[in-house]
Amino acid sequence: MKKTKRLYEGKAKILWETDSPGRMIQEFKDDATAFNGVKHEIISGKGVLNNQISSHFFTLLNEAGVTTHFVEKISEREMVVDRLEMLPIEVVVRNVAAGSMVKRLGIEAGRRFDPPIVEYYLKDDDLNDPILSEEHVTALGLTTHEFLAEMKTAALKVNSILTGFLEERGIRLVDFKLEFGLKDGRLVLGDEISPDTCRFHDATSGRIMDKDRFRQDLGGFIEAYNEVLDRVSS
Amino acid sequence: MKKTKRLYEGKAKILWETDSPGRMIQEFKDDATAFNGVKHEIISGKGVLNNQISSHFFTLLNEAGVTTHFVEKISEREMVVDRLEMLPIEVVVRNVAAGSMVKRLGIEAGRRFDPPIVEYYLKDDDLNDPILSEEHVTALGLTTHEFLAEMKTAALKVNSILTGFLEERGIRLVDFKLEFGLKDGRLVLGDEISPDTCRFHDATSGRIMDKDRFRQDLGGFIEAYNEVLDRVSS
Repeated sequence: MKKTKRLYEGKAKILWETDSPGRMIQEFKDDATAFNGVKHEIISGKGVLNNQISSHFFTLLNEAGVTTHFVEKISEREMVVDRLEMLPIEVVVRNVAAGSMVKRLGIEAGRRFDPPIVEYYLKDDDLNDPILSEEHVTALGLTTHEFLAEMKTAALKVNSILTGFLEERGIRLVDFKLEFGLKDGRLVLGDEISPDTCRFHDATSGRIMDKDRFRQDLGGFIEAYNEVLDRVSS
Repeated sequence: MKKTKRLYEGKAKILWETDSPGRMIQEFKDDATAFNGVKHEIISGKGVLNNQISSHFFTLLNEAGVTTHFVEKISEREMVVDRLEMLPIEVVVRNVAAGSMVKRLGIEAGRRFDPPIVEYYLKDDDLNDPILSEEHVTALGLTTHEFLAEMKTAALKVNSILTGFLEERGIRLVDFKLEFGLKDGRLVLGDEISPDTCRFHDATSGRIMDKDRFRQDLGGFIEAYNEVLDRVSS
């Protein structure tokens, strides 16, 4: 498979068109960004780790019957994925209160949600990714009621699969962000699943093992990603 | 009925305990505030107008079978209301895009929503009244699933009643905010319904006839409120 054109370059990934119809190459970069791009560093090795971690999770989900864009990992930084028409929505599942939610709603970090909370955000950097209700999603024409319901069901299924898998490896899945797209009229999970897009806490110590180490300048960033990979591969 | 104690003083109203059990007096002040209290003026006569307008709307709703706290208007600035245990939620119904929604979601003002959009906000000045999804409302324990569903149904019923009533009087109901409370375990509509809490546009010219005249320094504020009262009483 040959890369033929750079389709899109985001903060952490590049998407390449290939000579294989309907297939793209997703390349993971070493750029770490936070606060809508205000904070930006290159962290050597991050892309390689996220490609591996993401490949593990997508494989797990594909095997569990979730339709994802993941086909195969083909190099240190690259995976082959199905080309999707992405929906401009970030779907966030929260098992435990953390991050923006804590600040926005004034609740204590660490509060557990059972059932988990599913949130939707408009992907729009200029607007700072505003939060959406389900009614906003459909009223703004971002997707249909049917795909929205399907997305929510899929997000909760992903949560249940990942939570169980990670628990066995001593990791608490605090929250995570998913992005979906359409392929031939079907909803497919796209993007990545990595410590850039999930909050992982060590189940025993509560130690942060995700991008919050970068956001909060905690140090030990690449070591934490390495440890996630170690536990996920075990 | 005698006022016995000042229970609560807000930006635009005072609630008085009375010698009549379960009844309060709601007194409308002339204070106009916007942007979470940053802008504040005294507009002579506003309280008198809002008490009259609100009494009209509550009477209309009571007659249509909506359970409201309104008992009767007893003076220029005062109405008797049932004492409620208020829920810390603002319920907003939007027929047309305007205000914070336009800025937050980057959509064009004037866009019509059919069905109307129902939004929930946490009443918390320190947090700037953050928007809530239905899941947030129940996960934060602000109210039960049952009351939330009842509140939504009531809000849409109020919308349908007011929209029809105002249309006949040449006023477009753009959006409005409601607050609910509990009395003896039953959900009851409280607060006020006035140009302070609704957006009213002249149906023909689109002229603004609500608190946006104050927020946007458009002038003719009290004249607009007067005209709303004239049309509502006709």
